[in-house]
Amino acid sequence: MQAEIITIGDELLIGQVVDTNSAWMAVKLNEAGIQVKQITSVSDNRDHIIQALNEAQTRADLILITGGIGPTPDDITKKTLAGYFNTRLVFSEKVYQDILELLGKRSIPVNEQNRKQAEVPENALILPNKYGTAPGMWFDLNDKIFVSMPGVPHEMKALMENEVIPRVLKLNDTMVILHRTILTYGTFEARLAEILAGFEKNLPKEVNLAYLPSNGVIRLRLTIAGTDRKSLENILDQETGKLYRIIPHYIFGRDDDTLEKVVGKLLTEYQKTLSVAESCTGGNISKKITSVPGSSGYYIGSVIAYSNRIKEDVLGVNRDTILKYGAVSREVVEKMAKGVRQLYRTDFSLATSGIAGPEGGTVEKPVGTTWIAVSGSETVISKKFNFGSERQRNIERASLAGLNMLRMVLMKNSRV
Amino acid sequence: MQAEIITIGDELLIGQVVDTNSAWMAVKLNEAGIQVKQITSVSDNRDHIIQALNEAQTRADLILITGGIGPTPDDITKKTLAGYFNTRLVFSEKVYQDILELLGKRSIPVNEQNRKQAEVPENALILPNKYGTAPGMWFDLNDKIFVSMPGVPHEMKALMENEVIPRVLKLNDTMVILHRTILTYGTFEARLAEILAGFEKNLPKEVNLAYLPSNGVIRLRLTIAGTDRKSLENILDQETGKLYRIIPHYIFGRDDDTLEKVVGKLLTEYQKTLSVAESCTGGNISKKITSVPGSSGYYIGSVIAYSNRIKEDVLGVNRDTILKYGAVSREVVEKMAKGVRQLYRTDFSLATSGIAGPEGGTVEKPVGTTWIAVSGSETVISKKFNFGSERQRNIERASLAGLNMLRMVLMKNSRV
Repeated sequence: MQAEIITIGDELLIGQVVDTNSAWMAVKLNEAGIQVKQITSVSDNRDHIIQALNEAQTRADLILITGGIGPTPDDITKKTLAGYFNTRLVFSEKVYQDILELLGKRSIPVNEQNRKQAEVPENALILPNKYGTAPGMWFDLNDKIFVSMPGVPHEMKALMENEVIPRVLKLNDTMVILHRTILTYGTFEARLAEILAGFEKNLPKEVNLAYLPSNGVIRLRLTIAGTDRKSLENILDQETGKLYRIIPHYIFGRDDDTLEKVVGKLLTEYQKTLSVAESCTGGNISKKITSVPGSSGYYIGSVIAYSNRIKEDVLGVNRDTILKYGAVSREVVEKMAKGVRQLYRTDFSLATSGIAGPEGGTVEKPVGTTWIAVSGSETVISKKFNFGSERQRNIERASLAGLNMLRMVLMKNSRV
Repeated sequence: MQAEIITIGDELLIGQVVDTNSAWMAVKLNEAGIQVKQITSVSDNRDHIIQALNEAQTRADLILITGGIGPTPDDITKKTLAGYFNTRLVFSEKVYQDILELLGKRSIPVNEQNRKQAEVPENALILPNKYGTAPGMWFDLNDKIFVSMPGVPHEMKALMENEVIPRVLKLNDTMVILHRTILTYGTFEARLAEILAGFEKNLPKEVNLAYLPSNGVIRLRLTIAGTDRKSLENILDQETGKLYRIIPHYIFGRDDDTLEKVVGKLLTEYQKTLSVAESCTGGNISKKITSVPGSSGYYIGSVIAYSNRIKEDVLGVNRDTILKYGAVSREVVEKMAKGVRQLYRTDFSLATSGIAGPEGGTVEKPVGTTWIAVSGSETVISKKFNFGSERQRNIERASLAGLNMLRMVLMKNSRV
């Protein structure tokens, strides 16, 4: 079974909103053994929506549509679909009651726009939306299935998980697509391709390898498709095993691991605690760490010392050290790491100090220059990086480099 | 002139990577007066790429293609394009020198894969890539223009800004598309649509209004297209002015403003400083504030007090207060705000304490319960929110709600 995703909304085509829904839906479809053939974004325009529906059904059996079913007048998907499927809109008391209940819970008064949302295409199966006022709609036309969902991400996700995927699984129970993703940090894409040239040449021809670089992390994805899940899994296990033997020191995780999750697992395993002192990364490392559910088990807190005054007053960095070496220096970042570790009484700490840009660069220390330190009870290690000229990328790269340094220290620690 | 964007890569169709490039390119094209008709993501598959190219050129004059031109064997776009445009690949000494120079700067050794990247289609205009080893390619075929660029975002962006957009502007100098986006916070989509029903009904018919809600922020976008920029701008100015008169208290900014930028502007204008004490938001507020270039002018730093121990030891919250009221309470969050403001010696402070989930909820305080406080020199205000059940959304909503509370306090402050 093949699927296509159509996302509807002018906001996508003028670039006001990034389409994050499609990637999420693609993951869920893949897990259900369904390959996504194409993702198409079109405008809130009747003819264009219809053209996209026509094209998609020549390539796929399942067409998932998001967007354009909100309460405001620019939302025309529902009317267009009713026309396309040659049906009329009828008022549904059941949908209206769901809307009243939802709005009641949130103490929002119901209005005429909401009443219109209870009008649904007569020949569609209505899929209840737990988190919003626009229900999902499932159309079955000449063995092609079309599903319309809201574009609001959490509403779409609940509809997919509770309604769409369970129904799709009943229709599609033979084909299997499997992916294994190996996450690496510490080298460059071209260099990795060189190291893995022999491995790639000897891959079974049904296995596909892809390289996905992003801010220093390179993901290696192995893909295989077939009908016998067990034998496909065996092949992927074998090939994954080879990768672990060829590049063990670059691999930090698999699939949807992240550096912050891996660091969290290590801290949990060793029952150690962590604090962070951030200057140039401005909270981004702490935000990543606390995005992991359960992080309160090992992460105690951070000092964001954006001003040098806080480096002195709160973290205990000597003013003379800052004057002599500059805030972006080995001496200062190591003292920041020690300072937060003592203040927060943790086993480990991580500290950053750099020039994120666009201002603040000098000839000796251009924008992108960053010092990162990791402190444990016995030692402090630190390293200088030069990331580049773009602020957001510098912040992200410094955050990942710091988490990876911490990971390396924790792994060494495990051997002591 | 109409454009289409084709993004190539299996990683997009299995959902491993979110396509952020298309939205960025669409903004740039719109600024150049070019409407984006469709965005299409296809796999690293020769036939599918060719089908997408064929379909796109029936609708558009300019087709921008990203992805699939890296150094690794899964990248097949270049070969496919050479075939599609009936040309052969030739070694370019100029491109090779660019690659050598780039790798030299980064102290990366050159290898055979890089040498292959210097092979380019004979009939393409080569666009130099300042940040990567794969150059851009510009094909002109029967008055349709096709441009191939790398999928790595910062490489594509530099190519667009330095090479593609300047060339496109020379081809397209008549049509103008204008957008005005008004940013609101503080009410619900259906309620806003009700308030603006009259405004919308009276809009000139060439003006289009769209509602874009996200985590409590609702963007209202007005769009107009035509040839006379001046008269189009006048119409949009008039309609925007009406919005400011109808919903002044909900509007916090325009276009690519964010709450953190607006707060930054207010602090800069009043020459006031800010500190933050974050519990449930875990660094996300600090990260947002420091994502704004120049934030070091008003933002001093934060205490991320994830553990109650830090709320006590560093922020001075009384242990008995935490035991009596719980960490998620008015009493604790107000003391956190006062504590960080005193410790960091700032004019204002913002504090959060809530249950992000998935664990930690109780009957009285379910997951999503969040207290937020803003402290100035004279007063502390605080408010309780209930965001919902999903961790990442709770963190994001609490961060935006906090920044908006701070904004309201700063605006009142201006009138004192």
